[in-house]
Amino acid sequence: MDFAPDPASQEITERARRFVAEQVLPAEPELEKQLAAEPAHWGRTPIIHDLQDRAREAGLWNLFLPGAHGAGLTQLQYAPIAELTGHSPQLAPVAMNCAAPDTGNMELLAQFGTPAQQEQWLEPLLEARIRSAFCMTEPGVASSDATQIATRIRRDGDDWVITGRKWWSTGAMSPDARLLIVMGVTDPDAPRHRQQSMVLVPRDAPGVRVVRPLSVFGYDDRDHGGHAEVAFDEVRMPGDAILSAPGEGFAIAQARLGPGRIHHCMRALGGAERALDLMRERASSRSTFGRPLADQGVVREWMAQARIQVEALRLLVLKTAWLMDTAGNRAAMTEIQAIKIAVPRAVLGILDHAVQLFGAAGVSGDAPLAALWAGARALRLADGPDEVHLSSLGKAELRRAPVL
Amino acid sequence: MDFAPDPASQEITERARRFVAEQVLPAEPELEKQLAAEPAHWGRTPIIHDLQDRAREAGLWNLFLPGAHGAGLTQLQYAPIAELTGHSPQLAPVAMNCAAPDTGNMELLAQFGTPAQQEQWLEPLLEARIRSAFCMTEPGVASSDATQIATRIRRDGDDWVITGRKWWSTGAMSPDARLLIVMGVTDPDAPRHRQQSMVLVPRDAPGVRVVRPLSVFGYDDRDHGGHAEVAFDEVRMPGDAILSAPGEGFAIAQARLGPGRIHHCMRALGGAERALDLMRERASSRSTFGRPLADQGVVREWMAQARIQVEALRLLVLKTAWLMDTAGNRAAMTEIQAIKIAVPRAVLGILDHAVQLFGAAGVSGDAPLAALWAGARALRLADGPDEVHLSSLGKAELRRAPVL
Amino acid sequence: MDFAPDPASQEITERARRFVAEQVLPAEPELEKQLAAEPAHWGRTPIIHDLQDRAREAGLWNLFLPGAHGAGLTQLQYAPIAELTGHSPQLAPVAMNCAAPDTGNMELLAQFGTPAQQEQWLEPLLEARIRSAFCMTEPGVASSDATQIATRIRRDGDDWVITGRKWWSTGAMSPDARLLIVMGVTDPDAPRHRQQSMVLVPRDAPGVRVVRPLSVFGYDDRDHGGHAEVAFDEVRMPGDAILSAPGEGFAIAQARLGPGRIHHCMRALGGAERALDLMRERASSRSTFGRPLADQGVVREWMAQARIQVEALRLLVLKTAWLMDTAGNRAAMTEIQAIKIAVPRAVLGILDHAVQLFGAAGVSGDAPLAALWAGARALRLADGPDEVHLSSLGKAELRRAPVL
Amino acid sequence: MDFAPDPASQEITERARRFVAEQVLPAEPELEKQLAAEPAHWGRTPIIHDLQDRAREAGLWNLFLPGAHGAGLTQLQYAPIAELTGHSPQLAPVAMNCAAPDTGNMELLAQFGTPAQQEQWLEPLLEARIRSAFCMTEPGVASSDATQIATRIRRDGDDWVITGRKWWSTGAMSPDARLLIVMGVTDPDAPRHRQQSMVLVPRDAPGVRVVRPLSVFGYDDRDHGGHAEVAFDEVRMPGDAILSAPGEGFAIAQARLGPGRIHHCMRALGGAERALDLMRERASSRSTFGRPLADQGVVREWMAQARIQVEALRLLVLKTAWLMDTAGNRAAMTEIQAIKIAVPRAVLGILDHAVQLFGAAGVSGDAPLAALWAGARALRLADGPDEVHLSSLGKAELRRAPVL
Repeated sequence: MDFAPDPASQEITERARRFVAEQVLPAEPELEKQLAAEPAHWGRTPIIHDLQDRAREAGLWNLFLPGAHGAGLTQLQYAPIAELTGHSPQLAPVAMNCAAPDTGNMELLAQFGTPAQQEQWLEPLLEARIRSAFCMTEPGVASSDATQIATRIRRDGDDWVITGRKWWSTGAMSPDARLLIVMGVTDPDAPRHRQQSMVLVPRDAPGVRVVRPLSVFGYDDRDHGGHAEVAFDEVRMPGDAILSAPGEGFAIAQARLGPGRIHHCMRALGGAERALDLMRERASSRSTFGRPLADQGVVREWMAQARIQVEALRLLVLKTAWLMDTAGNRAAMTEIQAIKIAVPRAVLGILDHAVQLFGAAGVSGDAPLAALWAGARALRLADGPDEVHLSSLGKAELRRAPVL
Repeated sequence: MDFAPDPASQEITERARRFVAEQVLPAEPELEKQLAAEPAHWGRTPIIHDLQDRAREAGLWNLFLPGAHGAGLTQLQYAPIAELTGHSPQLAPVAMNCAAPDTGNMELLAQFGTPAQQEQWLEPLLEARIRSAFCMTEPGVASSDATQIATRIRRDGDDWVITGRKWWSTGAMSPDARLLIVMGVTDPDAPRHRQQSMVLVPRDAPGVRVVRPLSVFGYDDRDHGGHAEVAFDEVRMPGDAILSAPGEGFAIAQARLGPGRIHHCMRALGGAERALDLMRERASSRSTFGRPLADQGVVREWMAQARIQVEALRLLVLKTAWLMDTAGNRAAMTEIQAIKIAVPRAVLGILDHAVQLFGAAGVSGDAPLAALWAGARALRLADGPDEVHLSSLGKAELRRAPVL
Repeated sequence: MDFAPDPASQEITERARRFVAEQVLPAEPELEKQLAAEPAHWGRTPIIHDLQDRAREAGLWNLFLPGAHGAGLTQLQYAPIAELTGHSPQLAPVAMNCAAPDTGNMELLAQFGTPAQQEQWLEPLLEARIRSAFCMTEPGVASSDATQIATRIRRDGDDWVITGRKWWSTGAMSPDARLLIVMGVTDPDAPRHRQQSMVLVPRDAPGVRVVRPLSVFGYDDRDHGGHAEVAFDEVRMPGDAILSAPGEGFAIAQARLGPGRIHHCMRALGGAERALDLMRERASSRSTFGRPLADQGVVREWMAQARIQVEALRLLVLKTAWLMDTAGNRAAMTEIQAIKIAVPRAVLGILDHAVQLFGAAGVSGDAPLAALWAGARALRLADGPDEVHLSSLGKAELRRAPVL
Repeated sequence: MDFAPDPASQEITERARRFVAEQVLPAEPELEKQLAAEPAHWGRTPIIHDLQDRAREAGLWNLFLPGAHGAGLTQLQYAPIAELTGHSPQLAPVAMNCAAPDTGNMELLAQFGTPAQQEQWLEPLLEARIRSAFCMTEPGVASSDATQIATRIRRDGDDWVITGRKWWSTGAMSPDARLLIVMGVTDPDAPRHRQQSMVLVPRDAPGVRVVRPLSVFGYDDRDHGGHAEVAFDEVRMPGDAILSAPGEGFAIAQARLGPGRIHHCMRALGGAERALDLMRERASSRSTFGRPLADQGVVREWMAQARIQVEALRLLVLKTAWLMDTAGNRAAMTEIQAIKIAVPRAVLGILDHAVQLFGAAGVSGDAPLAALWAGARALRLADGPDEVHLSSLGKAELRRAPVL
């Protein structure tokens, strides 16, 4: 067992750290300004394109993607970089072309796409010429239970005809999101986990209608294309628009979840470290009743508890990455579930303390804390609520062999 | 000791219950629509004026105000009504002219205003012809520590000349808020709690500038006039614009806090009951993995814990009201502090569970939960962060006489 | 609604307060000494008899018992007295003949006993000439589920013949516990809640065998007769030894639980107040790193949170008592369940902080805290674990009518 | 970074696992019986000597000790073995001669002892011919603050003369504990951390008086020599009885704490795994209200949360061990403090759930849970209460350099 990162990992992590510190954080006010200037704009703003150019130059591009199409990093090597991008989740991931949901979609295309699909969609995504969305969750059903998915993908000759309604399609408000990956039922009579398939749908295909944006707490998340409700009304796609094969939808979705969840957790930890950086500064510069906040017992306790949680959970995230690298995503299932449950909760607690330390500024837009909090809060529901994962993890634990 | 409400209280509570259930809740979508239709409008929308007319007719008007100017209810009698308004905090309080910060401002004017001041400001407020704001909190200082207040109110002949900057002036984005009650330092050399005074300032007085709105977890709270940053640049007011007397600012502020806090707590409990109403409906109408949510152990536990907390804390709120009625606000200080700390925290926990039960809808605008949560979250900072109150309450407890 | 106690209640509460402060607390070291001197003795020690004489003189006797046999107090009037006895749970309840399980047993005999049964058992219990035990819980089954009870009470002519095994028969290690009230199955074919009956069994009846004592976190609870495992091997009792009628066992057990639970909660709150009295003293007399403990933020926070919880939960306990007095035990079911769940948990948290404040002395016998903790911990299991009550309360809450 | 244990570590860990499973757990009832048979005996019982022979044969001896005197394992390699011994903390550590406080004392003697001291005391300890105690904590002062230590070690000619009172000298009730390492003030005028020294004192030296045993909750911990209060009345020791040099006491104590704390944490995690093993068995073998406990949501949630915490904290403990091995105890200070705070709390929560699952058996001696709980609870106070460590860790965190 060895807890020291390898030198290559250290080098690129440090390069990423400098990029986020020197390029990304200082650009945050500019993003704010550009968003405010165009209240109806859902696409990437100029500062994003600008940062993308700089990241590409710095060799910080597509680092999330293992294998031939990507930058050649393992999950374990990518982890600390992903964490750093979590300090500025509106800007850093997209700057380095490591932003969800494109990351997961690129993984799917790299793993399951035909050469033609890869040329059509993966190439422009890898080059950040376009963005994409993933259309799985549906209003009106419990989407953590895949069998409840109601969108139908009907065979009609060689074509696939899609009818249904999705929501929480992150990014899909943006016209940049040229590609929608849509999950639906192709065979309602197949066994439970063989009924679904995925189809690649251009956002501008006839019958696709972006209905409305959804908000997370009061945020519209316009910086990354919002969260859309999307209606599919007899959307006709050619037969080769299917990803992998009919009936593979559930398996593909599962494959997508592992890396997706671990990346979310890494970034969330970065959000916690951002909060700690801010708290440190605040605690030393503010006083109440004649004493700096840093001298108050409760502030020290918050900092200590935060450090403990971040250190312990980061190790669990890293071990999960290592397991995915060395034994495969399936072998890391318990760990993935564990961090999916534990990290957002811990980070929310840390951010809550940070808000408290910042007082009224903490709930407002003057500090990034409230927005970080809302993002982390959504993670407790994304890909299934905590409770579903707790129940499943608990069931597995009850079946585990005893130690002695 | 007797836990049964008196018949008069029961009657008016039931009347208020029917009003909120039959008039207010069904009007919520209309408010939503009117706000969306005019994105730059910060004042009251037509539905609010409409509901105010109906509440007046129903005899549900100014119920918060004890004494000659008000409706003649005690705090104990008003409590269950305030709780009911908390089910729909955007509409119900304002409909019944019981919305903060007007309530606190009317209390001050009723208690400390001269007849002329009452005629000029209290009358139109009681009739809801105008609204008002309270300008106390300042950017850049820890406002829970009154000695840090930096706004200066300088004597110049008979006039008062105000210079400073306030923020979190709730309601002040709205042009309806004709009156600003501004706290500042009149005598920096006086003893610590005799330095401050309050002055009544028309929002359109020369030198007053509403700088910008602040958001609460992404919400602009436009329905009740937002939260403004307000600059005062040599704002000149006549000598009789002062409230009570010079040096009374701190004492007046203290007087305002007691009722303000208890009303916040009452409404917050109503928010929790709203969540429970919604959770009950959701749990019985949704299923996952073949079982209704209502059959899941964790949902039952949430409901049970919520019921316990609401019952216990409601009693503490009611006892606090009774103490204020029978022994005065000062005698209720421990209890006021206790509920100010405990109620928002408990309500936030209940709302968090409700969000979790509603899944993605819970964080969005499709359910009122996220907005209720943001409102309750702000309460943990309004009038001083929890930690200041915990420290002060703990200090008092350490000095308390032993039971035995 | 009125939160002021009536004068009669105030007078007797103050009398009880003085008794506990002046007679009971100072006697604690003597109890310790007497117990240490006779390590194999499970009965009442001389100091207990002595205090009982003094309580009788002071008119503080059988205060728990409403109705003709008791002292004429309502539950609401008894509540603050019961709380005071919780400051010294080893001595104060027994001193005033208000100690479990005798209290519950006396209630049953008063309510369901025939005049002959009352003469034989209730009289000596009311006079504290004997003590008693309640034999319901069984090893090997989940006793919160009454249908799992395995002890058989077979009819044989006019006689009842009892065979089975009980444990956690509190007090039964003591030879003073002349009476055992035993619950068992008389008719396994009857409907679920009509199968059980209760029989009055002298502890020295042939076939009764006290097998062994059980411990609670290392404590043998010798001061109140310990907790026994008791075997019943063909114990033959005459037909008139049955309490009430065959098939009434479950209903009687339910009747016993309401008052039992509320008394436990009252005393538990007294334990919390004892802890607060001790913490106050400790915090002002100890220093670390140059500052008294009372100046440390975390200590203040503990005190504040404790005060909030005690105040809120005490009101809920009092309201429960009032409901039992005015609407009957059945009408108070939700509240009884609520306090049964919430009070021990809150008290355990307070005691845990007290232990922490006392350092190593806190876990030892030098302070009463560890023993108070163990007693409160057992309450989370007595009469069914928290989880059973949470589930049942949650189910009821899910069925409740909406507020609006 | 590599999370796989090395083969040597895996082999000896598996050997230890089999030893604990096959030799130690089955011996627990025998220990119980031997302790019950001799209620006044504080020394090792026959089963302990027997297990020590078997452990020696199995090559599982002194594994805790790095360096020449020990078994040649690193802290990282010892960690999983220590965890396994925590499944049965009364038997397994002592069986393998890895029990506190001997471990810490042997470390001190190995590191700071003269050859003569090592021959006299280290040899017999390494061979388990004797045991030892560490006399640092004092009644009446806050021992987490070393400057409050009151025991005086006066120079008299060449001799040291010790006068003072210690308590919580674990093991010192046992006559096997031939050696007491005593900390006291040799120079009250020296700088704060140079005032104290340590002296090696035979337990039977004139003037040493073992005053009384202390209990932890209701446990006397007789199996490992209890916890003693010890009086030192003009105890005269020759000059060469001092450990290291005068004034080194504080530094030596610090050196002792690192390994001591990490070993405590490792064993505590083993206690948690023991609880999980027991919970798994219980949940599958018990039913209430017609459903096995394993099917209840709350049980699954407990298991899941426990697994998450154990996995995350175990990694933090392992990383701490690795830091101690590779960078020294001092470099691991933050991590040592972190696990010292976090592990006992997490383990207590897991044990509390286990108690709840076991019902009344959980609080009694019929399951090992209550005793494990009491042991873990004491860890929150041993070597300073959590609050002292939280404050210190928080202070360090506030001074830490920002990430970005």
